[in-house]
Amino acid sequence: MNKLEHIGIAVKNLEESNRLFSRLLGTDPYKTEIVEREGVKTSFFKVGDIKIELLEATHSDSPIARFIEKKGEGVHHLAFDVQPIEEKMENLKSEGFGLLADTPKPGADNKKIVFLHPKTTNSVLVELCQDRG
Amino acid sequence: MNKLEHIGIAVKNLEESNRLFSRLLGTDPYKTEIVEREGVKTSFFKVGDIKIELLEATHSDSPIARFIEKKGEGVHHLAFDVQPIEEKMENLKSEGFGLLADTPKPGADNKKIVFLHPKTTNSVLVELCQDRG
Repeated sequence: MNKLEHIGIAVKNLEESNRLFSRLLGTDPYKTEIVEREGVKTSFFKVGDIKIELLEATHSDSPIARFIEKKGEGVHHLAFDVQPIEEKMENLKSEGFGLLADTPKPGADNKKIVFLHPKTTNSVLVELCQDRG
Repeated sequence: MNKLEHIGIAVKNLEESNRLFSRLLGTDPYKTEIVEREGVKTSFFKVGDIKIELLEATHSDSPIARFIEKKGEGVHHLAFDVQPIEEKMENLKSEGFGLLADTPKPGADNKKIVFLHPKTTNSVLVELCQDRG
């Protein structure tokens, strides 16, 4: 991996957490986005050259809702910028890492994304992402 | 906060996890360090201009052992580089954030560090750190 792109943090209430992280990071979110197919409402903060993404579930069956139910609020995933994503997926598969999908899917922030199976990554949910251009 | 300095990940077995993260990140840890007063054995990986720190408990009463018992392995903390650390501590205190110590303590990687109370930071354990120079 060459670069950490963002850190995803699961929150119960995006509006409240936007206020909290604005005070913590000393900067306001620069955008908010809803990704219906992932069941999330997100906001993005810039810290140096990485991003902090807050994620609120849009419905009770969203992966974020299930994560919070199980583990509580907190860091949800680490996303690395990889190019091209398909090549990195093949490399990691051959190294024994599990992928949660066979092909990248559209994610927030105009990216195509895929997650690695946390059982193969020391319980850290790792996202691979690449700009859709 | 100006810069994410590192991401701390709690692991049960540092040697095994060093091998796993070497394959995942495509790079070997560049150093290992024991911080007795924190009860941790750590290793560091470089990814772009941030670091991934793996943390194994050196005894069963270490904060890392207690974290793993409660939450399992995974992301333990996010550390931000702040200078000077004492000024940032004052600022954050006046913004209502709780600090886990009144003064910074020596941490791994030649840093002075302090943690914010996760109850005040959406359950994300946030470390402030500054090089001891």
